[in-house]
Amino acid sequence: MENFTYAISTRVYFGRDTLHNLEFEIPKRASRILFVYGSGSIKRLGVYEEVTAILKTHHIQYQELSGVQPNPRLDTVKEGIRLCRDHDLRFVLAAGGGSVIDSVKAIAAGVPYKGDPWDFFTGNAQVHNTLPIGTVLTVAGTGSEMNGNAVITNTTSQQKLAVRSDLLRPQFSILDPSFTFTVPREQTAAGVVDIFSHILEQYFSPTPDTYVQDRISESLLYTCMKYGPIALREPNNYNARAQLMWTSSLALNGLLTYGKITDWATHAIEHKVSAVTDVTHGIGLAILTPAWMEYVSKDDPAGRFIDYAQHIWGIDGRKKEAVVKKGIEKTKAFFASLGMPSRLKDVGVQESQLRDMAASIVASGDVGKFRRLNEDNVYTILKNAY
Amino acid sequence: MENFTYAISTRVYFGRDTLHNLEFEIPKRASRILFVYGSGSIKRLGVYEEVTAILKTHHIQYQELSGVQPNPRLDTVKEGIRLCRDHDLRFVLAAGGGSVIDSVKAIAAGVPYKGDPWDFFTGNAQVHNTLPIGTVLTVAGTGSEMNGNAVITNTTSQQKLAVRSDLLRPQFSILDPSFTFTVPREQTAAGVVDIFSHILEQYFSPTPDTYVQDRISESLLYTCMKYGPIALREPNNYNARAQLMWTSSLALNGLLTYGKITDWATHAIEHKVSAVTDVTHGIGLAILTPAWMEYVSKDDPAGRFIDYAQHIWGIDGRKKEAVVKKGIEKTKAFFASLGMPSRLKDVGVQESQLRDMAASIVASGDVGKFRRLNEDNVYTILKNAY
Repeated sequence: MENFTYAISTRVYFGRDTLHNLEFEIPKRASRILFVYGSGSIKRLGVYEEVTAILKTHHIQYQELSGVQPNPRLDTVKEGIRLCRDHDLRFVLAAGGGSVIDSVKAIAAGVPYKGDPWDFFTGNAQVHNTLPIGTVLTVAGTGSEMNGNAVITNTTSQQKLAVRSDLLRPQFSILDPSFTFTVPREQTAAGVVDIFSHILEQYFSPTPDTYVQDRISESLLYTCMKYGPIALREPNNYNARAQLMWTSSLALNGLLTYGKITDWATHAIEHKVSAVTDVTHGIGLAILTPAWMEYVSKDDPAGRFIDYAQHIWGIDGRKKEAVVKKGIEKTKAFFASLGMPSRLKDVGVQESQLRDMAASIVASGDVGKFRRLNEDNVYTILKNAY
Repeated sequence: MENFTYAISTRVYFGRDTLHNLEFEIPKRASRILFVYGSGSIKRLGVYEEVTAILKTHHIQYQELSGVQPNPRLDTVKEGIRLCRDHDLRFVLAAGGGSVIDSVKAIAAGVPYKGDPWDFFTGNAQVHNTLPIGTVLTVAGTGSEMNGNAVITNTTSQQKLAVRSDLLRPQFSILDPSFTFTVPREQTAAGVVDIFSHILEQYFSPTPDTYVQDRISESLLYTCMKYGPIALREPNNYNARAQLMWTSSLALNGLLTYGKITDWATHAIEHKVSAVTDVTHGIGLAILTPAWMEYVSKDDPAGRFIDYAQHIWGIDGRKKEAVVKKGIEKTKAFFASLGMPSRLKDVGVQESQLRDMAASIVASGDVGKFRRLNEDNVYTILKNAY
């Protein structure tokens, strides 16, 4: 186990009818806020109405920034920063899924920063100061509601890059599983894959002696496997939605990472795919994860893929290679059962793009820590997933 | 799953050579502090020397309160409160195990309170304000380093009672597993039982639909089962000590409780036993846990004891009763393998005391939420454990 510093400061209000906690959390922080949301699903859910009623009751001045899209864009972030500056807003509230929350984080970091907010994503600037953030979560998957990560797409440079800072953890997040009842089937499935992938990115680690982290990771994988299919069959099943929502937060709030070096190659590759094609992140992950597994599992002296196949999929057998292969097949079959496509060609990628994509992925930073991948390795994974 | 509010604010520095973080954490909080420790093991470990050197370098004035005993006492707490008031101390640092940390919490709550600090434990007062707290952990078991719980013994009334408040969570805790290399064999074993029991108190719950919490709980039980015996065989095994130390914090920081009603009957009963006999808490738990299990498992419509036997001890079979019984036998055998006694008569309890103990336990508050126990039930459990 590596040394680590545990610091998960976000307060989470979890359960039905917890939105009213905004009344307590916002007025003590600011009297002028930016309220950010996406396509309008929060209006159908009644969240918009309840939030604005609370703001009015407590005489909180607010500006709205709506229309945040999946794979959220730098342009939107800049618009949010401008609104905060023009109206002297001191707090940013997100209501939506990971895209809205990630946008809010970038806005919160960008307001006190004089340069281009893209600097945080390219590594040209560090986050030293932010506006405080609160979130109301309406889609389970990214885990952004409890962590300090944000991923933003720069459409000009066709880059989708991440920033990470404990300063970007929301002060509070409202997690009401019933807000996710109306999440469409495909997006629910993509969320399950996203959670599953977040766990795997941390499970597959070169760090020895991470028993407790690995067993907890397996607990969360089991939860995805049990409740993902139930949420698809019964969208209004509160317990299934609750299990997935809480698992999604735990999967990426730091708990699984503390004490470990983690991989994140599949995410690095997928971010390029969705920057180029605008495919839903979870769908890209469903396609790329098995391809990554097939490629890197050939060189796995610590037997992590054997553990995975045995513990997660209950596969036993004498031949290690066969056990590992079956574990990967089961993973593919699980994603397929959720309705995910399995090839890049099915989501708008052109074969002619793969070389440039591999080059660009490697140029954006080191790829993979379970196994470090060079440009040729990444190209091979993309090709195998094509 | 029940609604819950997640709020674990303690920052944890985990790993070798993390004590130097005091240099960052203390000076920003206070220039006059109380430094509390126990029997002097921190002097043998070199912790005392390093802590006082840091305090001197940063011109922090400090008073010492040493000699805190296992099953820490109200008298010690009052002495600490007096020191803080007399010397205008604004921060309390604990270096030791759960007893030292619990004492520090009671001191921190008592300083700004005008009444008797025992009021917090009897329920006659609520914690509204505390001095800030930091800890350096040297024994794994109680989980006090990351939660807002404290248990104090009143030798006059022969009561051992608990207080709980998020305000009592330490601001920071230093967890260096190598500090636990020299913990004696019996105390190491008692710590493992304490962790195991904390998990079980939360695992056995009347709340339905707590899949993810239950699977995480099982992960932590596996960790105790794997690394408890290794730590006894190889006291200097860093990884075993690290696994146990981190598991101990996670077992009682709230993670397993969120969304569930939890039991805590065994702890309520044990607190009386150790208030009367001064037996080590974990030893009392090793004796009482199987007796509690045998008593309450006869009425378990949700099949929690079946899950426990199957998932934790791998016991299968058609006859439910036999499966449950084997699970309890395995639990007993595990505690015995750690060198724990199995009968109350072996730790200084007199049979003639059992009736009064049962009456006193029930008088201190409701006992058990997985199954509510009345005085006769508690007496039967004590008798069966005798």
